[in-house]
Amino acid sequence: MAFTDADMQGKRWLTDRIDAAGLPHWIDGAANVSTKIQGTRDAPEILVGSHIDTVPCAGALDGTLGVIAGLECLRCIKEANLVTRRTIELVAFSDEEGRFGGMFGSQSICGQINPEMLATMTDMNGVKLEDELRRHGLDPLGALDAARDPETIDSYLELHIEQGPVLDRVGKPVGIVDEITGLFTWSIRFKGEANHAGTTPMNMRNDAFMGLADFAHEIPRILDENGSERSRATIGKAQILPGATNTVPGLVEFSLDVRDTSEKVLDELSEAFRKALSAIARRRHLVFEFQPKSYITPVHCSEKMIQTLQQNSRKLGLDAHPMPSGAAHDAQIMGRMVPVGMIFVPSKGGQSHSPAEWTAWTDIEAGANVMLHTLIQLAS
Amino acid sequence: MAFTDADMQGKRWLTDRIDAAGLPHWIDGAANVSTKIQGTRDAPEILVGSHIDTVPCAGALDGTLGVIAGLECLRCIKEANLVTRRTIELVAFSDEEGRFGGMFGSQSICGQINPEMLATMTDMNGVKLEDELRRHGLDPLGALDAARDPETIDSYLELHIEQGPVLDRVGKPVGIVDEITGLFTWSIRFKGEANHAGTTPMNMRNDAFMGLADFAHEIPRILDENGSERSRATIGKAQILPGATNTVPGLVEFSLDVRDTSEKVLDELSEAFRKALSAIARRRHLVFEFQPKSYITPVHCSEKMIQTLQQNSRKLGLDAHPMPSGAAHDAQIMGRMVPVGMIFVPSKGGQSHSPAEWTAWTDIEAGANVMLHTLIQLAS
Repeated sequence: MAFTDADMQGKRWLTDRIDAAGLPHWIDGAANVSTKIQGTRDAPEILVGSHIDTVPCAGALDGTLGVIAGLECLRCIKEANLVTRRTIELVAFSDEEGRFGGMFGSQSICGQINPEMLATMTDMNGVKLEDELRRHGLDPLGALDAARDPETIDSYLELHIEQGPVLDRVGKPVGIVDEITGLFTWSIRFKGEANHAGTTPMNMRNDAFMGLADFAHEIPRILDENGSERSRATIGKAQILPGATNTVPGLVEFSLDVRDTSEKVLDELSEAFRKALSAIARRRHLVFEFQPKSYITPVHCSEKMIQTLQQNSRKLGLDAHPMPSGAAHDAQIMGRMVPVGMIFVPSKGGQSHSPAEWTAWTDIEAGANVMLHTLIQLAS
Repeated sequence: MAFTDADMQGKRWLTDRIDAAGLPHWIDGAANVSTKIQGTRDAPEILVGSHIDTVPCAGALDGTLGVIAGLECLRCIKEANLVTRRTIELVAFSDEEGRFGGMFGSQSICGQINPEMLATMTDMNGVKLEDELRRHGLDPLGALDAARDPETIDSYLELHIEQGPVLDRVGKPVGIVDEITGLFTWSIRFKGEANHAGTTPMNMRNDAFMGLADFAHEIPRILDENGSERSRATIGKAQILPGATNTVPGLVEFSLDVRDTSEKVLDELSEAFRKALSAIARRRHLVFEFQPKSYITPVHCSEKMIQTLQQNSRKLGLDAHPMPSGAAHDAQIMGRMVPVGMIFVPSKGGQSHSPAEWTAWTDIEAGANVMLHTLIQLAS
């Protein structure tokens, strides 16, 4: 995980590999690791990257594949003595996964980190970010200096494993992301009355769990009526109280995670879910409360980037699949500042954040080739 | 709770009250406390009773009310110098609530306790029953000697708080139980696949929680089609794994508690629930497993007892409500050996096993009067 000794060792391994390739390396105030191929002109640069931090019990690929593929592209360009007009910079962002909040490196580059955040961010064990930074000899306020001028960046490209089952199911080697999903999450409570499961007739119950079951049952209808084919709604977490076999549940607390690539659709889904909750609460004599926990706006990838990726895929004889990104990535942060594009490679069985995470070497090669040709074209 | 120092103190308090009433007291091998009014004939006796053990954080009434009402009846009979043909015995059963398994006293009297149970019964903290009995100077095998010859008991009568909302809702002072509900409980698992809530399209999910929601949604239909108005089905407990907001649940484990007063209806409900689980698992590509955890057969109260209770209610000008008992009581154990009857008094708001447990004094008086007149009639 980010800013552990293992993560710092990973950063050192990466700078060693950059050095070994005869490329320059530098580390900014957010501990983002960079290298570059210098262009001939003083024009906005092409940024390529992803992250090398990871989660406990993860697989080998995730963000790391995008960083390593980017480095391989820069090595190829250097070895081929190709000269580009624009500089191509590779960046390995810090703490994408969120030991401290998430997307720390890309948010720093986009100037979205402030001193208060730096002073208050802690991990789930209560370790403070500023203490971890100091422990590694880093300036705890350094991330403020990592902010870039948007005018210096032409566009950002990221290769990432899909982390979903789509490419594996449709049997395509590469996905070209057109939109990165937005999402909202709610924490919802239904309050009823806990009662004895034997002595309370069915029609005298205020069963909080049955309220949740009714709501879950409405999800497909709500998505059909108000969503798009890119909509997702998930109840991932639920606590039922008091939680005894012979007691009618008096309280449920559950999460709702809703995603779509259109802000308008997200708004409509939000309204439909709120209506359903309210109607169920009335029907079942429950009290409902909901608390919005997060809202992330969708990001549209750059048209020019999508077209360039499609052209280069075709040129390489690859059948690229246009698709949304259902997960958040550094590209989502970068996309609020500069035009972005993303290349997906298949995740075997849709597995991710697990040792079972895998992508066939031929697919990795395909994705990296699309990246290489796209970088050269963008930088030319 | 049973066999704690407080419970033993309660038993001593009860024997003191019996002594103060000028009645004899004795304690059998299961630590059941008894007293009696001796009849004039050597005929099978009338047993009346309930339990004085309780649960943590309970109310004042529960089983204790039945024991105290019984003692008051015996005091009245003694004070009025009434002579009955049959002996009337009051018994306060040990451990009805189940610190060690439940219904220990009534099971002992019915000869349903064996040496293996006595050697292996432990409470939820791992304290062994035999050690607790020894600690109080009781014989750990004594419960075996508590078994009675069914020929010595004519019938068993118990007064208990309803522990449900029915009498309070219908506004009647007394309930006459005609049947004590049977039940089965299952522990059920749906296994699907845990996946990312953003990257996994709705139609590529094996969402275990949605299987549970579908099942809960079928409960009203299954009860309507296969149950009676006395049927209850409750999902009181559920665990959703891995249990993260952004993860499609891969596993749910939940309980099902189903009750009815007819064994045939219970069988039909069991079959219908099994079919529903199987169909949902097929439809949602889940694996389902279920484990029966308990099965208790329903007990029918004695026709003669019901009629006697009804007659005496009418005589006292009380509008008694015929009803099932949805909860288990000592009467359910006794009912497998001898004819039984039960009197319910209202629980305010249906509350029980809570400090909010309450019954109006006028209703307690009504119930105790029905008990007194019924005991006298049965013993005459």
